[in-house]
Amino acid sequence: MAANSFVDEEILKKVPRWRNYLSAKLGFRNHWYPIRFSRDVPENQVVKAKLLGESILLKRINGKVFAIRDRCIHRGVRFSEKIECYTEGTITCWYHGFTYKWDTGALCDVIASPGNPVIGKKKVTTYPVEEAKGLVFVFVGDEGFDVPPLRHDVPPNFLDDDMYYQGFIYDVKANWRIGIENAFDSLHVYIHRESPLIPNTQRSLPLGHRAGTRDKVVVEDPDGPKGIRSGEFVEGSAGGSHVQPLYVGQVEGRDVVWGTKMHSSPEEAAKKRATGECAYLPCVFRIDNFPFFGGCQYEWSVPVTEDTHLFIGLLGKRCHSDEERHQFDHEFWHRWKPVSLEGFNNQDIMAREAAQKFYGKDSNWLEEVLVADDMGMVTWRELCHKHARGIQTPEHLD
Amino acid sequence: MAANSFVDEEILKKVPRWRNYLSAKLGFRNHWYPIRFSRDVPENQVVKAKLLGESILLKRINGKVFAIRDRCIHRGVRFSEKIECYTEGTITCWYHGFTYKWDTGALCDVIASPGNPVIGKKKVTTYPVEEAKGLVFVFVGDEGFDVPPLRHDVPPNFLDDDMYYQGFIYDVKANWRIGIENAFDSLHVYIHRESPLIPNTQRSLPLGHRAGTRDKVVVEDPDGPKGIRSGEFVEGSAGGSHVQPLYVGQVEGRDVVWGTKMHSSPEEAAKKRATGECAYLPCVFRIDNFPFFGGCQYEWSVPVTEDTHLFIGLLGKRCHSDEERHQFDHEFWHRWKPVSLEGFNNQDIMAREAAQKFYGKDSNWLEEVLVADDMGMVTWRELCHKHARGIQTPEHLD
Amino acid sequence: MAANSFVDEEILKKVPRWRNYLSAKLGFRNHWYPIRFSRDVPENQVVKAKLLGESILLKRINGKVFAIRDRCIHRGVRFSEKIECYTEGTITCWYHGFTYKWDTGALCDVIASPGNPVIGKKKVTTYPVEEAKGLVFVFVGDEGFDVPPLRHDVPPNFLDDDMYYQGFIYDVKANWRIGIENAFDSLHVYIHRESPLIPNTQRSLPLGHRAGTRDKVVVEDPDGPKGIRSGEFVEGSAGGSHVQPLYVGQVEGRDVVWGTKMHSSPEEAAKKRATGECAYLPCVFRIDNFPFFGGCQYEWSVPVTEDTHLFIGLLGKRCHSDEERHQFDHEFWHRWKPVSLEGFNNQDIMAREAAQKFYGKDSNWLEEVLVADDMGMVTWRELCHKHARGIQTPEHLD
Repeated sequence: MAANSFVDEEILKKVPRWRNYLSAKLGFRNHWYPIRFSRDVPENQVVKAKLLGESILLKRINGKVFAIRDRCIHRGVRFSEKIECYTEGTITCWYHGFTYKWDTGALCDVIASPGNPVIGKKKVTTYPVEEAKGLVFVFVGDEGFDVPPLRHDVPPNFLDDDMYYQGFIYDVKANWRIGIENAFDSLHVYIHRESPLIPNTQRSLPLGHRAGTRDKVVVEDPDGPKGIRSGEFVEGSAGGSHVQPLYVGQVEGRDVVWGTKMHSSPEEAAKKRATGECAYLPCVFRIDNFPFFGGCQYEWSVPVTEDTHLFIGLLGKRCHSDEERHQFDHEFWHRWKPVSLEGFNNQDIMAREAAQKFYGKDSNWLEEVLVADDMGMVTWRELCHKHARGIQTPEHLD
Repeated sequence: MAANSFVDEEILKKVPRWRNYLSAKLGFRNHWYPIRFSRDVPENQVVKAKLLGESILLKRINGKVFAIRDRCIHRGVRFSEKIECYTEGTITCWYHGFTYKWDTGALCDVIASPGNPVIGKKKVTTYPVEEAKGLVFVFVGDEGFDVPPLRHDVPPNFLDDDMYYQGFIYDVKANWRIGIENAFDSLHVYIHRESPLIPNTQRSLPLGHRAGTRDKVVVEDPDGPKGIRSGEFVEGSAGGSHVQPLYVGQVEGRDVVWGTKMHSSPEEAAKKRATGECAYLPCVFRIDNFPFFGGCQYEWSVPVTEDTHLFIGLLGKRCHSDEERHQFDHEFWHRWKPVSLEGFNNQDIMAREAAQKFYGKDSNWLEEVLVADDMGMVTWRELCHKHARGIQTPEHLD
Repeated sequence: MAANSFVDEEILKKVPRWRNYLSAKLGFRNHWYPIRFSRDVPENQVVKAKLLGESILLKRINGKVFAIRDRCIHRGVRFSEKIECYTEGTITCWYHGFTYKWDTGALCDVIASPGNPVIGKKKVTTYPVEEAKGLVFVFVGDEGFDVPPLRHDVPPNFLDDDMYYQGFIYDVKANWRIGIENAFDSLHVYIHRESPLIPNTQRSLPLGHRAGTRDKVVVEDPDGPKGIRSGEFVEGSAGGSHVQPLYVGQVEGRDVVWGTKMHSSPEEAAKKRATGECAYLPCVFRIDNFPFFGGCQYEWSVPVTEDTHLFIGLLGKRCHSDEERHQFDHEFWHRWKPVSLEGFNNQDIMAREAAQKFYGKDSNWLEEVLVADDMGMVTWRELCHKHARGIQTPEHLD
């Protein structure tokens, strides 16, 4: 294997149309990633995180969050072994007193060697940080790369003024690509058929797809995010193709799996079927009108290590007053977090961790047998291959 | 290392006469292996196993055992993460409802996508299964390989009508080759000198071999199993070369290790020394007139992973009535299992696990210093090199 | 990576002036290493150890210590799985009774095969052993290498008749090179600023170095050990350059770290600052006039595995009577062991284990950013590159 790739060249060259995706075991460089909720980075506290395999420290100083690499340039040790912040704007390495500024990364002092000529000449890696909608986003980029606006790396409408969000972060023992592919895999609703979300929301699942009815549309606006979305769905509308209110699964002609029959008016049933999905670079999925009509759920699969990612589940709703926002807070913590993020998505997490045992062996990416319904997944891989701004490689890691 | 070999070519090319054996870290393909006792595969229960590194599921349906690979063809997950068998003859993958027939492996339904065009066009790997003498044998073979009869992969007389067996399976943390080599290593009786089997059976061990007196004879019948056997021993007879009824081990001319002196008639002593050994492809050893005169003990070393194998210990006796068989059952569970399989062979298991620390490093196979008494082991390696029907390689694994 | 190197050639060729040092992940061959205190190798007891990745057994016979490789030549198992010593001068392998002499390693008997022709023709690896100053030293060398005297591998004066020592051994989870580099890193006193040793000895630490004032002198006497020492320090004298009796560390011009102000006469203060350091091949550091004036502390970083070493801390003092020696024993166990080896050097052990996370990745040796004060470290690496008598490689390991 080349020292600058995680994946063997012999394997990569077999998938010329999505080799950048297969290479990107640790994600794409030069993109924005959510890493923590703003609420989890309180003023003055140093927070550890790992992103695309890089160890990062976050600190909020006078309200603004800064991010630096958790690695002293001198002898490579982690600041986080023993945090020393003697002034508000600096961090000092515990080993030799190398001291850096949080904002620029500049080496401003060496406590053990005042006046050392290296002072002012070196810097530790810093990362651009943006906060939006209650999330802290970090840009993992190459030196000198022209940082794009955050809106190029989140789905359309995510940043709309009236969108209000609540969410939670879960650690998943699977590669990030397994995560995102699981999210917009149309057939995997099979695993959700006994989710408590179904009776809780009087919803029927769209089990029983016909192949080819769910083509994905590619979104490549030059001044916007790059992604794919379900073809038949118009962003924001309530149209939809999920037309089976009650499912019955068969094996050898016998009925073997039954869905829950819902008692609701045709209008109500129409609403519950009106979901639409999209996925955007670098690693975010959204499902509209889910888990409730008029709302949406975002699911990031943020690369952490080769075999772990963060599942960042975020529920959004348009709110126009503090009362509406408080009402939604209550609903999130008491209904949607247990019922959707945990009662529904935990099944996804189990599936991702199971699939990791297969896809964790690189050559197995060539062994999968995709079916017509999986073509959206291939479209996604090709889109990533084409639009990703860079690939994380072993040389970037600790 | 070549992607299609477990062992580096630089090492392999140094042993041209047994390179296939050194390559076969995970065993030989296109052979029959015992994997479970029949009693451990009850009707309708799905049983997990691993053989030559492949994850396998077994199910007995109307008395007949079927075996399939524990890996859905679609996205590679293991069926065993959550077993779903909706009809007697099928297994359904929990992820997307891909459903396969146990007998042919054919994909017969996709619950989440009825009528999907892939149905009927793909299959999961199945394995030929045979049951004999209370053991379930599985054939791990290449697509289209002409499956040989089971009798070609077991020692002569194993399948005789009047042979009756009892046995037990032990997990050993050592490569399978360490296992089989330990079994027919003539000098290793040294480790058994304090076994409770010795006083229990009033047996003397043949400690104190003279080099070269125990050449092995190669057995290469084109219509039978391939193996080696002790030269001086005639299959089924009671002749033997173990002529030292009492051993005394010496160091620097001083007596330091003593055997147990047995009080028995010369006729009885002759019987107890009349053992004969043989080993056959793919991985089975037999010792005749052991642990008792007229019986025999089989010891399979079945490859599981690179560094584990199953020790399948089987004691056999010719029985001609249910009463004889019940009597032997009683003797097995109350005498031979504790005294022979555990009181004697546990010492082998300790030795195998110790030797694994050395042979687990491939290059160390070139560092061993074999002596004249080990020549049977070399004969075995060369025989395997010549007659093995295929080699398990990394591409076959999960 | 070449099979005969631990480190990739692509990395090694970037440091031509110290490539032998970077290669020597498991230390240098053909050198003497302390491995245990004499007190820990009592008469007749077999003691296990690991040195440069080789498993070794020690036994003291009639007062003299012998060392053999813990690996039977026959099938490679470790003697230590089950020690059998039937005569005082031999060790027997538990597997087949291969018996070797502790002094020469010669195979003198095979208990399971008396008179076997291999007897007398083979030997197990033995290691030269020397005892000095309460330590057992083992020479890990190539077959036929002309063993140099121990005094070539210890610092000057170590073997002086009147030097008396006490010490202790600690296991460190870091490569040995991290250990020795940490020891003579002049800036790392920063981590010791809150050590209980400071108030206990009324000592000020030399925090606040000026770059370039502490060049190291290379010592290359053809008939003595090879090493480096602090330039301004004359071996045995009490001169010294540590001229800051009280330190104040600054960040952004603000005082942020304070030392302890000592109340002592100028003469006393001069003594406490009069330390001098040296480091000699293969892996020993010494600091003079530390932890007390007139004494010295040795610190060996003995390679064990790729990521562990022994920290052998030894305090020495010139003693001229049993009373003085007993007095020093008492001081060592009740003051210096808790205050210096544990109150001070435990901070080094934490630093070494932290640095291992960085230097454990070979390519990171090219990523460090050394400053002027670290030039002694580079001098050390180059000295080792030039004078080391050999490099441990994977083929030497178990």
